[in-house]
Amino acid sequence: MAEKLPLFSADDHIIEPPELWQKRLPQKFREAGPRCEYGKGKQVWHFEGNASPVIGLQAMAGRKVEDYTATAVTYDDMRPGCYDPVARLQDLDQDGVVCTVCFPSFPGLCGNVFIKAKDKELALACIHAYNDWNLEEWCGAAPDRFVPLMILPLWDPELSAKEVLRTAAKGAKAFCFTEFPHKLGLPSVYDDAWTPLWSAADETRMPALMHIGSSIGSAADMAADITPGAPASVFVTNAPLSSFYAASDLLWCPALAKYENLRFAMSEGGIGWVPYLLERADYTWERHRFWTQSAHMKEKPSTYFKRGIFVCFIDDVVGLRQRDIIGIDNILWESDYPHTDTTWPNSQEVVQRHFGGIPEADRRKITFENAARLFQMQPVATV
Amino acid sequence: MAEKLPLFSADDHIIEPPELWQKRLPQKFREAGPRCEYGKGKQVWHFEGNASPVIGLQAMAGRKVEDYTATAVTYDDMRPGCYDPVARLQDLDQDGVVCTVCFPSFPGLCGNVFIKAKDKELALACIHAYNDWNLEEWCGAAPDRFVPLMILPLWDPELSAKEVLRTAAKGAKAFCFTEFPHKLGLPSVYDDAWTPLWSAADETRMPALMHIGSSIGSAADMAADITPGAPASVFVTNAPLSSFYAASDLLWCPALAKYENLRFAMSEGGIGWVPYLLERADYTWERHRFWTQSAHMKEKPSTYFKRGIFVCFIDDVVGLRQRDIIGIDNILWESDYPHTDTTWPNSQEVVQRHFGGIPEADRRKITFENAARLFQMQPVATV
Repeated sequence: MAEKLPLFSADDHIIEPPELWQKRLPQKFREAGPRCEYGKGKQVWHFEGNASPVIGLQAMAGRKVEDYTATAVTYDDMRPGCYDPVARLQDLDQDGVVCTVCFPSFPGLCGNVFIKAKDKELALACIHAYNDWNLEEWCGAAPDRFVPLMILPLWDPELSAKEVLRTAAKGAKAFCFTEFPHKLGLPSVYDDAWTPLWSAADETRMPALMHIGSSIGSAADMAADITPGAPASVFVTNAPLSSFYAASDLLWCPALAKYENLRFAMSEGGIGWVPYLLERADYTWERHRFWTQSAHMKEKPSTYFKRGIFVCFIDDVVGLRQRDIIGIDNILWESDYPHTDTTWPNSQEVVQRHFGGIPEADRRKITFENAARLFQMQPVATV
Repeated sequence: MAEKLPLFSADDHIIEPPELWQKRLPQKFREAGPRCEYGKGKQVWHFEGNASPVIGLQAMAGRKVEDYTATAVTYDDMRPGCYDPVARLQDLDQDGVVCTVCFPSFPGLCGNVFIKAKDKELALACIHAYNDWNLEEWCGAAPDRFVPLMILPLWDPELSAKEVLRTAAKGAKAFCFTEFPHKLGLPSVYDDAWTPLWSAADETRMPALMHIGSSIGSAADMAADITPGAPASVFVTNAPLSSFYAASDLLWCPALAKYENLRFAMSEGGIGWVPYLLERADYTWERHRFWTQSAHMKEKPSTYFKRGIFVCFIDDVVGLRQRDIIGIDNILWESDYPHTDTTWPNSQEVVQRHFGGIPEADRRKITFENAARLFQMQPVATV
């Protein structure tokens, strides 16, 4: 890795190994816990009567774009780096990625499967099992390189706060939240119910990551947002915009003003839309706050953005061009391994293309230092 | 106006005078046609059993932002320029605005009230009455300054095409379309049902204007898109983003590729989000078209944007900074008289602030020449 730029990817993904819950759950929950049926062209997770295959789009690292598929795939079809942390490290080394933040797959991007679960005692045990596995086995393979990202029992903000504190003590560095909790039947981000969680996040300085797509409750929800007759290209084009709406909610809700160390990151949301959001929100504050129930806000929305919101991009020349407006300290780079948008194994080339003409100090912040600070990591192999 | 920069506003609004339909409708439709009950603090439109007041936010020109109100207002509360074309011209003169494109108010931004009407024969008569009034009386007050903008019987694409051709012969220059016709119960923009309308638009070169908010069917529809607990500031901040989604649909649907002279304008949608849309759509085309049913698209989506989509801004420094990416020929300025976001009576000052440091030739295109070309106007008082 000597001649490579060291990179810190703020958003990658794990395909969970098949025995994760069966090995980790307390005996009384194993029978009911998630089971992976796999082999011979099949790989399906079973839980509470639902069968969930792994979709090709979740594990395409290394394929040509012409071969991307939205159909089901198996462990045999994917790189071992998808599910094995040691193999992942080899893939990261090849690509010059020093550190990585990895989201769950089967549980959903914010633990959705467990939020929806009927048996909440079981669901909580599954969350503990995932987090302990993540801390001990996945991140345990290289604690200075894997950032422990936790899932929470978001159906209960008090329990969520507890899990933040429990895992922080074991070295956890961030947790999954969701863009629009109300779409999952939870209190909205404006609801005071989240106070215990914001408070625990503030205390531990663990950022809340809001990945695009984390609030899609079902395929029907997704279809409802898409114009009839539109090709899937439209969904792909528009998908990052959910981060615009989620960030806009955060700008206007009291949490960021109240908690000085509360941080959010909009995972996979891109950054090119941020300058428009900030200008538009400040304009709204200047011109409309008197009739829109926002006259109490003492500072412009962009002030809260600078302090509390991080935005993440994979491929976004337009956004980098506007980095001065977004805030050079608020931008994180991501590789999205092993999803379809991943830069792997061309991260070095993609980064070189993006940062040509951008000062070295800016490039270092965006591709490494901002993430190291946000996630409180002190990796050995820094720049 | 000698020392003022001449401006062409691509988006303003009419508050309809009270007798419009009662004077214009054929005798047999008058009893059932729209009636305005007004005077003594009251101004309500009655039609098919519904009572619609005029909301303050629709007629705030000249007020201080601290005095904006979302409650009902009357003709007496507003500047005569809202409903009287001669008074409007005086207001335009004061502000240096040479030409104006005016949207309807009571009918809705795309004639929504008539699209929803039960009696479609009556609704068609109302549309003819509005368009003839607009051509003869509103625009008749200064045909080289008012751009005749028509409403169409969008529930029937064939009838709509007919109305385009009928009004084009009388001097009409544009028509109201809507961002998401499927949300109003009409065929989506991907539907071949629109072929007659696209063909008539192509033939007459009348652009289709898609104003933000034109597809909001009801207050309940609007509420469904907003996070529970959010202040109205969030709605104001996010409102222009509907143009992102509508433009994205246009980029991926076959109409722009098929009709060389078909033009759309995203009224009041802002421009700061456009560079991100174009980069993201082209990226999606390059990387995802093989699995997203778009491999047949011969050219990148941005190619169709350059030819067929115009974007309009009121206050958008971020967007102008990126004008090279958006396309210097695709940007229109607007004043939004007499809505809350209007630049009136400070348009000169707002434009000077936006265009400081921007070459004169670019400024002329954006504030005048692009609109004059799109709307086929040859105003006497050009630059």
